[in-house]
Amino acid sequence: MINFTASYTDHYELTMAYAYFEKGRHNERAVFDYFFRKLPFDGGYAIFAGLDTLLSILENLQFDSKDLSFLSQVGFNERFINYLRNFKFTGNIYSCLEGEVVFPTIPILQVEGNIIETQIIETILLNILNFQTLIATKASRMRQVAGNRQLIDFGLRRAQGVGGYHATRAAYVGGFNSTSNVRAGRDFGIPVSGTMAHSFIQSYDDELTAFRDYAQTHPNNCILLVDTYNTLESGLPNAIIVGKEMEARGHKLKGIRLDSGDLAYLAKKSREMLDNAGLTDVKIAASNQLDEIIIKSLLEQDAPIDVFGVGTSLVTGHPDAALDGVYKLASFKGEPRIKISENIIKTTLPGEKQVYRFSNSNGRWIGADVVALIEEKDIEMIYHPFDPHKKTVVKGHVKTPLLQKVMESGRRIIPSQPLSETYLYSSKRLSHLPDEYKRFNNPHIYKVGISEQLRKQRDALIISHKNK
Amino acid sequence: MINFTASYTDHYELTMAYAYFEKGRHNERAVFDYFFRKLPFDGGYAIFAGLDTLLSILENLQFDSKDLSFLSQVGFNERFINYLRNFKFTGNIYSCLEGEVVFPTIPILQVEGNIIETQIIETILLNILNFQTLIATKASRMRQVAGNRQLIDFGLRRAQGVGGYHATRAAYVGGFNSTSNVRAGRDFGIPVSGTMAHSFIQSYDDELTAFRDYAQTHPNNCILLVDTYNTLESGLPNAIIVGKEMEARGHKLKGIRLDSGDLAYLAKKSREMLDNAGLTDVKIAASNQLDEIIIKSLLEQDAPIDVFGVGTSLVTGHPDAALDGVYKLASFKGEPRIKISENIIKTTLPGEKQVYRFSNSNGRWIGADVVALIEEKDIEMIYHPFDPHKKTVVKGHVKTPLLQKVMESGRRIIPSQPLSETYLYSSKRLSHLPDEYKRFNNPHIYKVGISEQLRKQRDALIISHKNK
Repeated sequence: MINFTASYTDHYELTMAYAYFEKGRHNERAVFDYFFRKLPFDGGYAIFAGLDTLLSILENLQFDSKDLSFLSQVGFNERFINYLRNFKFTGNIYSCLEGEVVFPTIPILQVEGNIIETQIIETILLNILNFQTLIATKASRMRQVAGNRQLIDFGLRRAQGVGGYHATRAAYVGGFNSTSNVRAGRDFGIPVSGTMAHSFIQSYDDELTAFRDYAQTHPNNCILLVDTYNTLESGLPNAIIVGKEMEARGHKLKGIRLDSGDLAYLAKKSREMLDNAGLTDVKIAASNQLDEIIIKSLLEQDAPIDVFGVGTSLVTGHPDAALDGVYKLASFKGEPRIKISENIIKTTLPGEKQVYRFSNSNGRWIGADVVALIEEKDIEMIYHPFDPHKKTVVKGHVKTPLLQKVMESGRRIIPSQPLSETYLYSSKRLSHLPDEYKRFNNPHIYKVGISEQLRKQRDALIISHKNK
Repeated sequence: MINFTASYTDHYELTMAYAYFEKGRHNERAVFDYFFRKLPFDGGYAIFAGLDTLLSILENLQFDSKDLSFLSQVGFNERFINYLRNFKFTGNIYSCLEGEVVFPTIPILQVEGNIIETQIIETILLNILNFQTLIATKASRMRQVAGNRQLIDFGLRRAQGVGGYHATRAAYVGGFNSTSNVRAGRDFGIPVSGTMAHSFIQSYDDELTAFRDYAQTHPNNCILLVDTYNTLESGLPNAIIVGKEMEARGHKLKGIRLDSGDLAYLAKKSREMLDNAGLTDVKIAASNQLDEIIIKSLLEQDAPIDVFGVGTSLVTGHPDAALDGVYKLASFKGEPRIKISENIIKTTLPGEKQVYRFSNSNGRWIGADVVALIEEKDIEMIYHPFDPHKKTVVKGHVKTPLLQKVMESGRRIIPSQPLSETYLYSSKRLSHLPDEYKRFNNPHIYKVGISEQLRKQRDALIISHKNK
C-alpha cells in the first residue's frame, strides 16, 4: 500500500529543510524550474504528462503520524517535527498544460513558494513527471505509426512494480485506446480490454472446447488466442469453427490474437483463412514484444493487423530508463540564481521565466520556442542557449505563452478533466508540429532559444561567480 | 494513492474467471509455475526478491466496493459480482525463500488453488516479483564490485513512478546499505541517508556560508556537495575550511560529495587535498550516472571513493527494462498440462514439481539444479531441458530442495522478517556460488536440468497433442 504522504521524498530535502529552519530562512521565497535536457528515444519531441496526478497529490500532501515518528527517530528535533506536523504545500505552480508537446531546456513547470515546501516536493514532482512524460512520449510514437489501428496497453505484469499504475495513465495521454489494467481503468476512466491467456486453453483437454466455452460466455466480446498448440493448423481452424457457430447464433467472433511466431506471415495467412471462411469482420490482434519500430515494420510489410497489444516497451519506456528531468533553483528572495558547470549545457537559466512558442499566421508551429524573463514583452530575436554565435529572427511570428498558473497558494485553479480530453488536447497540439520533427531517424531539431535579456542575466551571473 | 485491491490485475484474468464461473469450473484445482527464461544483464545469476511483499498483499487481497461497481459497469453480471465480493485468495504457495540465488527455467514459486484465484493473482504476482528480482539482481552486481564500500540508493526521482518504493526495498535485499527514499526507509526499516542539493548552496550568496550553515545544523552528519561552482578551486577549499572549523569545535566533517566531472581524477585530487589538510577521516562520496560497470572502472583506476550514490540504473535496472518472468499452468484437476511452442525453449514443463540444488560435501554449489516431479526421490542424472543429447551425472552430490510451503490456505506460514536478515540470507547463499558465475563478461552458465521422469512426462504430452 502506498499513499502519498510527504515522506515520499529524498532524505536530503529534509536535511536541507532542517538547516533552513534552524537558520530562520524557511519563509524565504524560492522559484524552481522543472526541465529536461535530452529528448527520450532519440526522438524529436516529448509529450508532457503527469501534471494532474501531481496537482492532486500536492493539494493533499502532509506528513502523517508514522512519518513524524520515523523522522523523530532518525534524529530531527521536536521543534522541526512540530513544524512538519503543520506542513502543507502553499505555493504557486505555473505550467504547460498536460499533453503539451515539449522540448529540452524549456521550463515545463515552475514552482514558487517558501524554500522548504518548494524543496520537499522536488522528489515527488520529478518522480511523477519524469516517468509519465517518458511513457506518454513512448505511446505517442506508437500512435504515430499505428494510424487509426487500436493500441492496447498489456504492460502491467512487466511494469516496474506499482509504477504500472501511472504508466497506463500516461499511455492513454500519449494515444493508446485501452488497457488490460483494471485498476487504472477504474481510476482514470480508461477503457479496459483483454482476451484470454494460454492457461485458459490448457485447462481444457482440447482447444475447440475451450474456444466454445469462451465464446458462449463472451458472445459480444470474444477474441480467441490461437497459438497455444499450433497457430495455423489448430488455432485458426478451431477459431473459424467457433466463428461460424457464433454467426449461426446471431453473434460475431470479434477477433483472434497472435502471440508468437512471425507476426507478419501469420497475420497474412490468418486473414486469408478467415476471409475464405467468410469471416471478413473478424479482427486480427497481435502481441509479443512489440514496440514502435516493430509495429512500423509490420505495417510496412502490409501485415493485416487491426489491433496491437503492447507491454514491456510501452510501460517501461525501453530502451530508455528515465527522462532526465531536473528541478533547479532559479530564484531566491526575488533574486536570480544560477548553477554553474564546466559544461555550459549544464549551467542553469536564472530568474523567473516564461516560454513562448512561435507559429505562422495559419497556426502551424515554426519549430522554435524561446525562454524569456517574465517581464519581457517584445522578442524579435532568439539566441542559441549555449552557442553564442547562433541566433534566429522570430519577428513577425505569432507568439503564445506556454506557462500558465495552474495552482495558487496550494489549491489547483485548473479543474481535473477526463483523461480523454487530455489526449485530445495533446493530439491537437501535436498536429501543429511538422512531420519532420516526428520521424524516428534523425528527426529535425526543434530550436529552443533564449531571449537577449535572459542571456545577459545569465552571463552576468557567470562572470560574477567567476570573479569571486 | 494505490492500495492493492484485487482489481490490480489484467482484464483477461477476469474474463477467463467469468468463463470458468459460468461453466461451473471455478472450484477446479490448478497449479501455476512462476519462472523466467533469461537472466538479466547478461549475468550469471539472479536474486529472487519480492516474496514478502507478495505474501502480504495476497493475505489481504479482495475487491473493494469501487472495484465491484466498476466491474459491474463494464458488463459482468450480478451473480459473478457477488462471487467476487466474497473473493479471497485461499491457495497454497511453494517458493524459494526471498534472497535465493535463482536461474532460468527453474520454478521459483508454485501457486496451487482453485482456477479463479490462481488466475486472478497472476498479474500482481508477476508485477511484484519480476520487478523486485530485476532490481535486487542489479544491486547485487553493484555489491559484487563495491566490496565493503557504502552503496546508497539515490534513485527515487528517476524511478518509474511509484515503482520507486519497491525498487528501494529490492536494492536493499541485493546489498545496498541505505537509501535517500524516506518512505521506504520508514516502511522497510532501511537506513536513510542524504547530503544536500545544489539548490542549498545556490540559495546563499556564497558557498562558504552555505557550508558553514549546514555544518552547524548537522554537526554529526555533514557531507558537503562540492561541485556547485568549481570542485577543486572553490568546493574543496571551502569544505576544508569548514572541516577544520568543525574539528576546532570537536566535530568531524563526515564527507564530501562529487557529482560531476571526471570522478576518478577529482576523487584523487580531493583525497590529496583533504589529506594534506589533515582531514584524513573525511570520506569521499561520488554520484552521477553510476552503474556497476562505472563503479568497477573507478575502482580499477584506484579512485579513492568510499561511498557510491546510485540512482537511475539501480532503480530501473537499466539497460534491462524487465525480468521476463512468466506464470504458466502446470497442472489442472491433478493432471499435468503443457503449453507447446514451435520453439522447444518456450514449451512449458508440465506437472507439480520440486527443484533441487546440488552441492559438494563442503557446501559449495556444483553449478547445477534439477527440476523434478514432486514425487521423485532419487535423481542420479539430469537432462538438458531442450537438447536431448546432453546429460550430466549428479549421483553422489548433496541435493537440497529449494521450494518450500510459504502460504497455506491463503495464510502465510513463514513469518515476515527484518529486511536486513533477508539480505544476510541472500549474501550467504551467494557465497556458495563460485566466482566464475558472478563475472560480468560471459559468466559461466549454471546448468539447469530436468529429471528423467519429467522429461518423459513432457515428451509424452507433446506427442499426444501432436497426434490430436
